[in-house]
Amino acid sequence: MISKNKIKFLRSLGIKKYRDKNNKSILEGVRLINESINHNAQIDGIWICETYKNLNNQIISKNNSKQLIDYIKEEDFKLLSNTKHSQGIIAEVNTHQNDLFKFSKPLNENIIIIDSISDPGNLGTIFRTCAWFGIKTVILSTNTTDAFNPKCLRSGMGSHFYFNNILKGDNNNIIDLLSNSNFNVLCADLEGDNIGNLNIEDKPWALILGSEANGISDDFSRYNKITIPKKGSLESLNVSVACGIILHQLFK
Amino acid sequence: MISKNKIKFLRSLGIKKYRDKNNKSILEGVRLINESINHNAQIDGIWICETYKNLNNQIISKNNSKQLIDYIKEEDFKLLSNTKHSQGIIAEVNTHQNDLFKFSKPLNENIIIIDSISDPGNLGTIFRTCAWFGIKTVILSTNTTDAFNPKCLRSGMGSHFYFNNILKGDNNNIIDLLSNSNFNVLCADLEGDNIGNLNIEDKPWALILGSEANGISDDFSRYNKITIPKKGSLESLNVSVACGIILHQLFK
Repeated sequence: MISKNKIKFLRSLGIKKYRDKNNKSILEGVRLINESINHNAQIDGIWICETYKNLNNQIISKNNSKQLIDYIKEEDFKLLSNTKHSQGIIAEVNTHQNDLFKFSKPLNENIIIIDSISDPGNLGTIFRTCAWFGIKTVILSTNTTDAFNPKCLRSGMGSHFYFNNILKGDNNNIIDLLSNSNFNVLCADLEGDNIGNLNIEDKPWALILGSEANGISDDFSRYNKITIPKKGSLESLNVSVACGIILHQLFK
Repeated sequence: MISKNKIKFLRSLGIKKYRDKNNKSILEGVRLINESINHNAQIDGIWICETYKNLNNQIISKNNSKQLIDYIKEEDFKLLSNTKHSQGIIAEVNTHQNDLFKFSKPLNENIIIIDSISDPGNLGTIFRTCAWFGIKTVILSTNTTDAFNPKCLRSGMGSHFYFNNILKGDNNNIIDLLSNSNFNVLCADLEGDNIGNLNIEDKPWALILGSEANGISDDFSRYNKITIPKKGSLESLNVSVACGIILHQLFK
C-alpha cells in the first residue's frame, strides 16, 4: 500500500528541481538497486509491483534493505516506473553531491573533471568506468547534465555510491582548485600528445573530459592535451569509451 | 511533399521484419546522416521538416545527397521521427548485412565477434569504437540485437557504413569460421589473462565480446579468455568501454 502523496513525491523526483530540493532520486531495476546497496547507498524505500513479488528474494540483505520493501498494485507501480521494459521494482535513494566552492578538504588523489557532457547515459557510463578504475572523486562543470537523473543512475550501475565526492562547480572554481593543488592536468582531445607516449610525473593527475560535439571548453585550453591514436577514419570515439582507454593507460 | 504510402513505408522500417525484407533503415539527425554519407552509405531520400529548412546547408554535397532532399510539413515529419528531441531531418538508407554461412571470402584480418548483445545503443557504440580502430569486419551472433535498428545506427555515428562486412551467423557458423581460419581467438571475460601481459602471435586475431549480464556463451568457452585489470570494486565495465580498452591494447 502506497499513499497518493508518496506517489506524487516519488514522481516529482523525475524533475531535477525536486531532486535538488530533496537530495533524493529514483533507482529502477533489481541489479541497479543491489549494486547501489552494495556500495552503501542510503535507501529510504523499495516498492515492488505485486505481480513481481519474487523480486523480494533477489534484493540483497544489507542495511535493513529487506525491511524497506513495500508491495504495491500494478496501477500504482505504473505511475512510478520510468522504463519501457520495467522489472517491477524501484527505490528511493539519497543523493550526495556537493558544491565545489564549499569543499575544503585537500585532494591528494587522481580525479576526473567532466566538462559539459549533456547525455545522462554517457555520464553514467563514465561514472561506472571511473569506479572500475578506483577513482573516488569526480567533479562536474555546472553545464554538465544532472548526475542523479534516473537515466544517469541507471547507466552508472551503482557507481554513484562508490565515490567519496561528487562535486559540482563552474569553470572558475575548477581552475582555482587546479591552480591551488599539485595536479598533473590532462585534457582528452582529438589533437594532443599520444597517450601511448605519456610520461606521468609522480603526482596525482586530473583528467578533463569534454563533450563529443564541442570538445573541451576554451577555459581549459591552457592545460596539456592528450589523444588516443586513431587507426580508422571515424570522426570521434564515444566519450565514455575514450575515458576507459585513457584510464587504462594512466593506471598501467 | 511526401505521399501517404511513403510515410507508411518509412514508418514500417521501425520494425525489424520490414527492415530485413527491404534491406533499408532510417537515419535521424544531421551529424549521423553526414557521417554516413562520408562513409559512402547509399541514401535513397532525405526528408527535412519545413521549419528546419536551414539544415539543407549542413548536408554534405556528395553522391547526389543534396538532390535527395525533400521538405515536408511538420505534421508529416512527426509521423516519421523516432527521437525525443528531433533535429528535423531523417534519411532512408540501404543496409548491408550478410549471412555468415553464405560468406566465402577468406578473412585474413582482425575481426570482432559480438555474442548476444541486446542493447542497440551498446552495439552501435561498439561499432563506432571498431571503426575508430580500423576494424573492417564484424560478425554478430543470431541472438544479438539488429545492427540496423535506428537506435543502433544513431549510436554507431556512421560506422556501419565504414565496414566492409557485417555478417550474421549462429554460434556453429562462427566456430566453423574460426576452426577453418588461422585466428588468434580471444574472449573478453571477467576472469582471464591480464590484457597488459598479452603476447599476440603474428597472425590476425578474432575478439569475442559477450553480454554484460551473461558473459560469453558456453559455445565459446574453448577459447582463451582475457581480462581488463580492475582497480575499484564495481562488478563490470560497460561492454563498449571494455571493447575500446582491449582494442587500444591489441593495436599497441
